[in-house]
Amino acid sequence: MQTDLSSFSNPDFRRGASGLKEIAWYLVSSLFFRHSLALGKFPGFKAWLLRRFGAKVGKAVVIKPSVQIKFPWKLTIGDHSWIGEHVWIDNLAPVTIGSNVCLSQGALLLTGNHDYKKPSFDLITQPIVLEDGVWIGARSVVCPGVTARSHAVLAVGSVATKELEAYQVYQGVPAEKVRQRVILKGS
Amino acid sequence: MQTDLSSFSNPDFRRGASGLKEIAWYLVSSLFFRHSLALGKFPGFKAWLLRRFGAKVGKAVVIKPSVQIKFPWKLTIGDHSWIGEHVWIDNLAPVTIGSNVCLSQGALLLTGNHDYKKPSFDLITQPIVLEDGVWIGARSVVCPGVTARSHAVLAVGSVATKELEAYQVYQGVPAEKVRQRVILKGS
Amino acid sequence: MQTDLSSFSNPDFRRGASGLKEIAWYLVSSLFFRHSLALGKFPGFKAWLLRRFGAKVGKAVVIKPSVQIKFPWKLTIGDHSWIGEHVWIDNLAPVTIGSNVCLSQGALLLTGNHDYKKPSFDLITQPIVLEDGVWIGARSVVCPGVTARSHAVLAVGSVATKELEAYQVYQGVPAEKVRQRVILKGS
Repeated sequence: MQTDLSSFSNPDFRRGASGLKEIAWYLVSSLFFRHSLALGKFPGFKAWLLRRFGAKVGKAVVIKPSVQIKFPWKLTIGDHSWIGEHVWIDNLAPVTIGSNVCLSQGALLLTGNHDYKKPSFDLITQPIVLEDGVWIGARSVVCPGVTARSHAVLAVGSVATKELEAYQVYQGVPAEKVRQRVILKGS
Repeated sequence: MQTDLSSFSNPDFRRGASGLKEIAWYLVSSLFFRHSLALGKFPGFKAWLLRRFGAKVGKAVVIKPSVQIKFPWKLTIGDHSWIGEHVWIDNLAPVTIGSNVCLSQGALLLTGNHDYKKPSFDLITQPIVLEDGVWIGARSVVCPGVTARSHAVLAVGSVATKELEAYQVYQGVPAEKVRQRVILKGS
Repeated sequence: MQTDLSSFSNPDFRRGASGLKEIAWYLVSSLFFRHSLALGKFPGFKAWLLRRFGAKVGKAVVIKPSVQIKFPWKLTIGDHSWIGEHVWIDNLAPVTIGSNVCLSQGALLLTGNHDYKKPSFDLITQPIVLEDGVWIGARSVVCPGVTARSHAVLAVGSVATKELEAYQVYQGVPAEKVRQRVILKGS
């Protein structure tokens, strides 16, 4: 059997906003998120904009320059989390980021997949959940449907394809567990 | 022995177009390909532009925003293929993409290499061939000289350094065969 | 124990320049480094600009388009080295690049890390040294504190997390030694 992309379908996918809202977000994203200007000097401004487009964003969230977010209305971020430079949140499906989470520079959150067993190569979207204290390393990728449990770490340049257990460090393509994360009291 | 880049040479490399054509492509690429504006609302427009610069592009090819193509005059694409967001086709040598091929977001096709056994670090360019139904996953890299046979799959964040066999799935850095791709009839 | 990013501190980090100098570099970087215009037709211009901002740059250094450099005042480059397209030198700490070094397209040099064993997630910056003749492959990453000894090679898409020995080739995430690099005389 062969793939036939002319028969492609994504019947269950909902964009979640009107075309007008998407265009408005495109403009706001271009002006305030996707370029390299350091608007971090106005803390809270980007979070405020995201909330205007339906995102749930907690307090003291840091959003660095050159960040790409697909659909803010499918994004939830807790308190004191950081979104690094050149991070790409490609959230066709909901992405839920807890508190004290760090997404380092160049990290990519992927929610879209394809069913490569079907000729029609159907789109499959799956949510991503990053619980409190998670650290997603620089230039790493989180795949659709992945949950990173509390304080899990994904190392630089790694690809998470399955659940990351709490307080464990993962590395590689695909990422495997390599050690425990111990956080020392009073240090 | 040491590398001496002042002696660098690439005697066999041909850019394949006049300087004027390169400048024209630079402008067209900047205006219509490399930015984030969703011109997909005008299907066929980008394919038409590519053909004006010597590319062979089939019908119903989808080209997403923020795509970088080095030399369109060294590019061939079949029918119903998709070029995802932030894909970079760095085709110093010819790149041939079949029909029903999907290049997911952030994929990189590399055709330039260096002979690291020579002090002069000579440029070596080698073509890439992606046969029908191939899927190159998000943020993955295809190295110079690689052929991906019919319906091969390169997983997210992987690096293909050698031929990918037909209907097989590859993963890792470097990518190794991990399973078969079975496409189910009537599904 | 849990991470608490509201307690984040980086007491030992020095930006190394005045706010005014940073703003000036932001503008110069935006105008001449970070976009896609091929200014390589004016050899030496970008190196001259980098020197104005405190970088030590040798002769005949090639800097391709779309390059991002954090702090030029923490950058040293020898003679005849190449900085490829979309290279990102994120040098919070000093980065020292020797002569005849090639950073291929999309390579990332990381100098910032976090102490994930502390609730305050302290910033740790560590320098990077790339000795003469080193080749950092396309879309690869060099981690904080790494030294690449003379003529070491990091393969495409790999992540260097520890010292790369002289005249050895490394590959993978994390990168492991895979073969020796022999440079042939008179070739």
